[in-house]
Amino acid sequence: MKFCSACGHRVSHVIPAGDNRPRYVCDGCAQVHYQNPNIVAGSLPVLGGRVLLCRRAIEPRRGFWTLPAGFMENGESLEQAARRETLEEACANLGPAQIYTLFDLPHINQVHVFFRAELASEHFAAGEESLEVRLFEEAEIPWKELAFRTVARTLECYFADRLAAGYPVRNEVLPPLAVTAVTP
Amino acid sequence: MKFCSACGHRVSHVIPAGDNRPRYVCDGCAQVHYQNPNIVAGSLPVLGGRVLLCRRAIEPRRGFWTLPAGFMENGESLEQAARRETLEEACANLGPAQIYTLFDLPHINQVHVFFRAELASEHFAAGEESLEVRLFEEAEIPWKELAFRTVARTLECYFADRLAAGYPVRNEVLPPLAVTAVTP
Repeated sequence: MKFCSACGHRVSHVIPAGDNRPRYVCDGCAQVHYQNPNIVAGSLPVLGGRVLLCRRAIEPRRGFWTLPAGFMENGESLEQAARRETLEEACANLGPAQIYTLFDLPHINQVHVFFRAELASEHFAAGEESLEVRLFEEAEIPWKELAFRTVARTLECYFADRLAAGYPVRNEVLPPLAVTAVTP
Repeated sequence: MKFCSACGHRVSHVIPAGDNRPRYVCDGCAQVHYQNPNIVAGSLPVLGGRVLLCRRAIEPRRGFWTLPAGFMENGESLEQAARRETLEEACANLGPAQIYTLFDLPHINQVHVFFRAELASEHFAAGEESLEVRLFEEAEIPWKELAFRTVARTLECYFADRLAAGYPVRNEVLPPLAVTAVTP
């Protein structure tokens, strides 16, 4: 952020009076521009014990498999966002949905929330952002070709919870992946 | 939003190619400026069956009682945000915390998340944003002087769930309050 979105003046990155962390503050009109985490909402659609996954047609992670998910929009609820993304990416409607997994990704300022639901019908198809959409038995899940960690972790939780016949709501922090230093 | 925060040019409110809703798009550098819901994180601190509430020293709702809560910051988890707000507003540390209530407030583009926790000690005090902090028995809760609906609803859920001896995670949509039209 370099310019004030309200008046167009330059902004400075300073700690405002009465605050305790740096914010972008307008040099002209003094407006403080807060930056806060974004929410990604998605679903774990199930039909006859099989799980619906979408192969991504867009970056990031084009060609990898994901649960339907995307940024929550202003004016909608978490569940509405999850249903909209499911419709957009998999042309599928969900039956009654339960909130299931919440992941904190503080290193990228995101919270990912997944709802668990049966598909409302057998109809699904690849939406514009998907190359392919299909149902997977547990043994068929392409674990090495999953697009995102929160997708993998939601699937892990689901299959474990299904065995245990209970689906507790889970809130987990996913720190950055350890990077192996490469030294010459 | 009137100006691009990246280059300072004017923005237009238009539907970008490949999108389906209006966004602020820069007339100069073409950057799309997305606007998304914010997260408010807070806690329901309990000690010996009593609930800790803070009387607000700041607007909005100065003088009314609230659970400690505030906007989640970049770089923190939901639970860290709830603990930070509890420390800032009530000078109190929480023991182990469980995610408890999630409220969608689509009319104000917010999601409120409360964690349930015992206080880690008997120490608490009014932080800068509080006039007063105290513990309340259920019968003492100032229902008509609560600052926010998500606070009232979290307390309602808590006392009901305590009777039932189970604390399911709840996700509820709180639509705008009905406004009674005043006609002359």
